[in-house]
Amino acid sequence: MGKTNKNNLKNKLHEIIYEADTPAGKLFDIVLLIFILTSIALVMLESVSWIDDKYHDILYIGEWIVTILFSIEYIARIITVNKPKKYILSFYGIIDLLSTIPMYLSIFVVGSNALVALRALRLLRIFRVLKLARYLGASNHLSSAIKASRAKISVFLFAVLIASIIFGTLMYLVEGEEHGFSNIPKSVYWCIVTLTTVGFGDIAPQTPLGQLIATIIMIMGYGIIAVPTGIVSAEYTKNANKNDIDKDSKAEKIHLNSQTCQNCLSTKHKDEAEYCYNCGHNLHIE
Amino acid sequence: MGKTNKNNLKNKLHEIIYEADTPAGKLFDIVLLIFILTSIALVMLESVSWIDDKYHDILYIGEWIVTILFSIEYIARIITVNKPKKYILSFYGIIDLLSTIPMYLSIFVVGSNALVALRALRLLRIFRVLKLARYLGASNHLSSAIKASRAKISVFLFAVLIASIIFGTLMYLVEGEEHGFSNIPKSVYWCIVTLTTVGFGDIAPQTPLGQLIATIIMIMGYGIIAVPTGIVSAEYTKNANKNDIDKDSKAEKIHLNSQTCQNCLSTKHKDEAEYCYNCGHNLHIE
Amino acid sequence: MGKTNKNNLKNKLHEIIYEADTPAGKLFDIVLLIFILTSIALVMLESVSWIDDKYHDILYIGEWIVTILFSIEYIARIITVNKPKKYILSFYGIIDLLSTIPMYLSIFVVGSNALVALRALRLLRIFRVLKLARYLGASNHLSSAIKASRAKISVFLFAVLIASIIFGTLMYLVEGEEHGFSNIPKSVYWCIVTLTTVGFGDIAPQTPLGQLIATIIMIMGYGIIAVPTGIVSAEYTKNANKNDIDKDSKAEKIHLNSQTCQNCLSTKHKDEAEYCYNCGHNLHIE
Amino acid sequence: MGKTNKNNLKNKLHEIIYEADTPAGKLFDIVLLIFILTSIALVMLESVSWIDDKYHDILYIGEWIVTILFSIEYIARIITVNKPKKYILSFYGIIDLLSTIPMYLSIFVVGSNALVALRALRLLRIFRVLKLARYLGASNHLSSAIKASRAKISVFLFAVLIASIIFGTLMYLVEGEEHGFSNIPKSVYWCIVTLTTVGFGDIAPQTPLGQLIATIIMIMGYGIIAVPTGIVSAEYTKNANKNDIDKDSKAEKIHLNSQTCQNCLSTKHKDEAEYCYNCGHNLHIE
Repeated sequence: MGKTNKNNLKNKLHEIIYEADTPAGKLFDIVLLIFILTSIALVMLESVSWIDDKYHDILYIGEWIVTILFSIEYIARIITVNKPKKYILSFYGIIDLLSTIPMYLSIFVVGSNALVALRALRLLRIFRVLKLARYLGASNHLSSAIKASRAKISVFLFAVLIASIIFGTLMYLVEGEEHGFSNIPKSVYWCIVTLTTVGFGDIAPQTPLGQLIATIIMIMGYGIIAVPTGIVSAEYTKNANKNDIDKDSKAEKIHLNSQTCQNCLSTKHKDEAEYCYNCGHNLHIE
Repeated sequence: MGKTNKNNLKNKLHEIIYEADTPAGKLFDIVLLIFILTSIALVMLESVSWIDDKYHDILYIGEWIVTILFSIEYIARIITVNKPKKYILSFYGIIDLLSTIPMYLSIFVVGSNALVALRALRLLRIFRVLKLARYLGASNHLSSAIKASRAKISVFLFAVLIASIIFGTLMYLVEGEEHGFSNIPKSVYWCIVTLTTVGFGDIAPQTPLGQLIATIIMIMGYGIIAVPTGIVSAEYTKNANKNDIDKDSKAEKIHLNSQTCQNCLSTKHKDEAEYCYNCGHNLHIE
Repeated sequence: MGKTNKNNLKNKLHEIIYEADTPAGKLFDIVLLIFILTSIALVMLESVSWIDDKYHDILYIGEWIVTILFSIEYIARIITVNKPKKYILSFYGIIDLLSTIPMYLSIFVVGSNALVALRALRLLRIFRVLKLARYLGASNHLSSAIKASRAKISVFLFAVLIASIIFGTLMYLVEGEEHGFSNIPKSVYWCIVTLTTVGFGDIAPQTPLGQLIATIIMIMGYGIIAVPTGIVSAEYTKNANKNDIDKDSKAEKIHLNSQTCQNCLSTKHKDEAEYCYNCGHNLHIE
Repeated sequence: MGKTNKNNLKNKLHEIIYEADTPAGKLFDIVLLIFILTSIALVMLESVSWIDDKYHDILYIGEWIVTILFSIEYIARIITVNKPKKYILSFYGIIDLLSTIPMYLSIFVVGSNALVALRALRLLRIFRVLKLARYLGASNHLSSAIKASRAKISVFLFAVLIASIIFGTLMYLVEGEEHGFSNIPKSVYWCIVTLTTVGFGDIAPQTPLGQLIATIIMIMGYGIIAVPTGIVSAEYTKNANKNDIDKDSKAEKIHLNSQTCQNCLSTKHKDEAEYCYNCGHNLHIE
């Protein structure tokens, strides 16, 4: 009986943490969202020296509150999942761990004088922002269009890189060290800054020949920005059209909910589903 | 009889102010347009110190003329509409009020020495530019394409923001305070400046590692600018296609005029319409 | 008989100058192209002080040679066309006149000390570059796509301008004169520099609040650059598709030549045409 | 028999060098890839003065190892191909030669004091990066979309250039030498920097009128960036659609392999091919 109670509690918790359909689950999501945003704000504000000087104690206490809450969340997630190892080694499992551990480690490092390492360690907390990825909501069209375009865009960016190396070397030769093009890697960097139309202006060609080559690079960059855009746009149109046809042919629309299988963590089960489509685990009773 | 006359006058005014089909209505629109543009020019010129020094009195008088005319327009709009409350609380109602009130308030504030508040107050007049929105003409295709893409572009921009926070923190760690990356918010700001290919150059990476990361950010920015473009482009193509099909199937084209219902402010009535399609109010007689 | 000879000569010249199908016509076009490019180069080089100091005489003589040749061309064009007035008042007629007149006028101005006016006058010669427009070749698809999109892009750019004025005023208020935002017109200028992702960096926000607003402007600019691209892209796709359908339905392809009617200057006559489709003038005999 | 052995060896080598289907061929490709990347890294690092000062000997030895290996590759390629002249004069033949020759020539130049020529000569090695083009993999869709758009984009860029010359001259007149617009070529350079939204900021307009013209240029640049994108996007969509139709109509899919004809260097033979489709040469036996 005690075990059943414990299981009930576990199921209840699982529902709250992993599902967003129940009021409790929604509340949990909103509270978590607020804590993540607060936590990111704390890390950012800490880096602003005058704010850190003035409110150091408040930031430090806030940081510990957030860390402890994230720790509780992490432990709760491990307990309520049937295959904790799978969760721990998953993308979100690692992010959730990284959200808490730097703060605990910082206690031990404080003793030593490895301040730089400490700073880097504490800044690891910024990766908490990835916890937000849970709320991004997979825009299926978009991600499939990007996935379909990935190979082509890679080829394209690779070609851009080759062009940058050649033009960068040319600019190094033409402009030389006295105008800021002090070595080839820096020239290539400048060339990418120009091709992508960012144009910082910290380095800029001074000689007429250098400016002529820069003009060619810019016109090239302006012309070729069309290529990745054209690819994604065409892939997206294709996907959208295909989807429209699919919608027409398939009369019934399957309703999917946000339930997560306790066993294998797979999502997007049908509303009427009793068992996980992926591992056959019973979704409703433990 | 007096009441009928008054109603006739009210109807006449309503026609002039809210409709653009009659000669009087067109004239009203053009005059209003000129006054709005003059008024924006006045606010702008006032901020240029040498112009303000030289022509302060002319600008001040001009400002009062415009304000009084806008006040008359505002009152006329309230009088001629059947449901004044609805107009007052509508977007354009608030803009029309904001176009007059700062000038009147500035008389009272002058007495005190709250100069900064006064400046801010006077600059509120710039929102008069939104009065121009009335003339923008709803390009239906466009706005529906943007509306359809909004959710996806938001997800995309949210992902860009997450990437900016992570890369910004990385740059803060790599470049540090001595190269202008003095705190994380500033680094994130720089990261967005770079990702969007704006590239002011007020802050620029100095270390080779920082420049390498900057290169990655720029190439990323160059590659992902394709995504929102692809989305809008595809949505727009889809809408345009759908519209073409609609046009073919519907043989008759319904002619809509610029008439506005005096009762509920809804527009786009058919030419032959006698009653408002929205509230049933008689469009021609009060 | 003398008149027939003269007419023959006139017809011959008309063919050489206005048509590109005969060998003589082609040669004329190439020679003219070379002279235009030379002339542009001369104007540009003249403005570089060290080149002007060294080779002033050569540039001056070259300039006169080009000017005299352009004058001959202009006169020949007037003589060989049937309706000289129409040519003189046409876009290319005005450009052709502007290509010669500044040089002749400069003789008279030299006497006086109106050096600035002279400089401006001489620089008018740069408009010779528009003579090149004759060779651009109307890419029909392209121009029709742009024409179809023009209204929508105008609305879009107008909306961008309204946003720039509001955000510019906001930045003027937040950053103020001490950070370069010395008046509203300048702030609006900065805002457009940022929105269009140009980002000169001569003015850049210094305060955290200013940088936050700048971030919003940049993200906005990054998101809305998609809009005009989407419009042109969709219009172009639509046009291209329509054209493909047109091509399939119309089996015969009409061959058009580069002949120009001597009477009304209309072009694109069919190969077998005897009379101008526009004015009925006989194309072959005068 | 000796000749057969030699031929066997030659065939074996041809397979390894020119084909990527066999394990030996794959290994050769990977090893070559590593050496190309190493070689590019060496050229780049050599240009960084502090690295060159410290590790000059290592870089120099590494450079010679790479050069000798590339020489062996070049000779092997000539030997194993049936028509060496065709290979030597092909794009990759010239690149392969350029990858080795600068290093050998540098020995002779060292004796003289033509240091600048030497530097330029040694930097020629950067063209080794083009050896990578072999691995780019022809993304057929992409290249055909670009090829189809080339003419239109050229017309477009030509129009951009004409606009840049006119606006550049205007800015030279308005801003003048004192604000960095020291001559027309430089003004045109600035105009292209602005139109392409690069915006270095090394030159920026200072006068109100100059800033107004700059605003027009930027808005123009922002509006017209849509044009090439629209073209490529539409062409790409068209190609993709055409391809989809082609795929449907052609039921069988022909499998092409990476084999290269020893006689005419043509690639993309069918798997079952015995003879080269281009020159009729037997693909399997010499």
